[in-house]
Amino acid sequence: MKIRITGTGSYIPEIVKKNSDFSQQSFYTIDGEPIYTPTQIIIEKFKAITGISQRRYVKKNLTASDIGAFAAKKAISDANIDPESIDYIICAHNFGDVRAGAIQSDIIPCLAARIKYLLKIKNPKCVAYDLLFGCPGWVEGVIQAQAYIKSGMAKRCLVIGTETLSRVVDIYDRDSMIYADGAGASIVEATEKAEGIMAHETASYTHEEVYHLYFGNSNNKSEDESVRFIKMNGRKIYEFALNNVPAAIKTCLDKSGYTISDVKKILIHQANEKMDEAIVKRFYRLYKTAVPDGIMPMTIQELGNSSVATVPTLFDLIRNNQLKQHQISKGDIIIFASVGAGMHINAIVYRY
Amino acid sequence: MKIRITGTGSYIPEIVKKNSDFSQQSFYTIDGEPIYTPTQIIIEKFKAITGISQRRYVKKNLTASDIGAFAAKKAISDANIDPESIDYIICAHNFGDVRAGAIQSDIIPCLAARIKYLLKIKNPKCVAYDLLFGCPGWVEGVIQAQAYIKSGMAKRCLVIGTETLSRVVDIYDRDSMIYADGAGASIVEATEKAEGIMAHETASYTHEEVYHLYFGNSNNKSEDESVRFIKMNGRKIYEFALNNVPAAIKTCLDKSGYTISDVKKILIHQANEKMDEAIVKRFYRLYKTAVPDGIMPMTIQELGNSSVATVPTLFDLIRNNQLKQHQISKGDIIIFASVGAGMHINAIVYRY
Repeated sequence: MKIRITGTGSYIPEIVKKNSDFSQQSFYTIDGEPIYTPTQIIIEKFKAITGISQRRYVKKNLTASDIGAFAAKKAISDANIDPESIDYIICAHNFGDVRAGAIQSDIIPCLAARIKYLLKIKNPKCVAYDLLFGCPGWVEGVIQAQAYIKSGMAKRCLVIGTETLSRVVDIYDRDSMIYADGAGASIVEATEKAEGIMAHETASYTHEEVYHLYFGNSNNKSEDESVRFIKMNGRKIYEFALNNVPAAIKTCLDKSGYTISDVKKILIHQANEKMDEAIVKRFYRLYKTAVPDGIMPMTIQELGNSSVATVPTLFDLIRNNQLKQHQISKGDIIIFASVGAGMHINAIVYRY
Repeated sequence: MKIRITGTGSYIPEIVKKNSDFSQQSFYTIDGEPIYTPTQIIIEKFKAITGISQRRYVKKNLTASDIGAFAAKKAISDANIDPESIDYIICAHNFGDVRAGAIQSDIIPCLAARIKYLLKIKNPKCVAYDLLFGCPGWVEGVIQAQAYIKSGMAKRCLVIGTETLSRVVDIYDRDSMIYADGAGASIVEATEKAEGIMAHETASYTHEEVYHLYFGNSNNKSEDESVRFIKMNGRKIYEFALNNVPAAIKTCLDKSGYTISDVKKILIHQANEKMDEAIVKRFYRLYKTAVPDGIMPMTIQELGNSSVATVPTLFDLIRNNQLKQHQISKGDIIIFASVGAGMHINAIVYRY
């Protein structure tokens, strides 16, 4: 038995926040030193590294569970299924529902329960839970769905990744420009055909790496010390990712029985353009092969890094022909891969 | 193949908070009206309904992940396994790490990653994720571990329930006296013997019930409106639980093939003594049977309601002969059952 994604949906928030919208912002280092480089130069350097020229934010009245429900609705409709037939709703996120202007994460009840409520699904046998696994949460949710289906505990799962990072950024930190909001969702089901998930791989590195992404104070030391934000040690994450993600993807591909030349697309977590390119380059180097043109579709330029939402959104956009230069055809081998807070890494080799 | 719990551990926080410690507290209704009943009378009524005479709080320097690690360490030692051989660490909670005096939930990285770090487990193949599922989180984690083991994705899982509700209570709400801190953990493994999990049942009721437990403002309307706390609609939860939990446990027992007379103990989430008694009474009524003496071990009187921690703590205390009047012997049929925010219900019929 194989596990297949039979429907996808995504929600791209309405507010376009351009790089130029940060031009009046003053930035500080992690040590609280003001950065005297002109903001225009900071933004240009930022763009050169991350590839980001704009990102999306949700409107004030929306939360992560709201936009998760929007994406889920589209996935259900795309799969053309009765929502009451869903056995599991798995919602991956990292900060829960954070209202505009608030600093508290609201995670009670869990977001999956709220989304089930918003989808008006009444079947009590539909189990709704949240999964916290850093940015790799959506990919991990698909792997968990596979476990329920393979063990006979479920036939059909809805896996959502939803995040509103705009609500947890430290505006005095240059990294704040990386983060975005978004939601992606998929319906995951069993299939008797030789398609869908061919192999998966997950790893949690929690030794020296556990606090590479963390919850910390503002870089501006005059800000309220009791308030914390999403923070990261970018340099360490970059090194960690380059040292570990290519090997994890290789382990997954080798397990699948496919070869490097079979791979048509790599849908990687949209963390940072330069880092993603370096990961893919090193992955191909493990096979002593050059990176083929167009192997890695990117949305980070326009959408930023929306954590758990980037991979399912990318997949949904390609399936809906929204990234014209990237097509996936029946039988193509694609790879989903992601890395994030934990630090967690995962990958899926998938036959479309 | 069956799934068995091969080791247990728990952490009972050091600070004993007695009912009398609330005697100087003023309480308000949910509508913000001061309650003029003398606090002594309020506390007596509270005790008559919930059974709680004291509860445990963690010391200032500890968080949910710290105490989760304490419980996990004991479970690993009890199972007598190499911690590096654990395939999954599943950590159930509802509010993450909330520091003393803080109002923010810190859930990045996820608590399972922090616990893995504290346990000094280095094996990257040990996948560490958090599960949000209300008070039934630990029971659900055991059910999820079953899925990984049955599907061949894991052999050995560590399932933790940890919570510091003392950090999220509204002191002006009488319900604040219910909540407690605590952690429980278990090692879950496959067995070829006819023992362990014989059946499980999970249900998520998210229609009218979704906000029976929620994140809301203080009952004292002069408090900061931007700060929210754990809140519940006790009357609705009571009605919901009585209408749905007994039937869910019955479904589970009937699936297991065992009869009501086989049941030796019911380890139910320590939510409220009167509610738990009413649930068990109604469960037996479904079989037209009287409730046997000593069927339901209770710790709520001394430990309060520590959410995800109550069931694994109860199980650990019985296994370690800490509840003298309650014994479990090899071959005994026991039931784990819980209900909480979501609203979620679950049950496991377990052959010891």
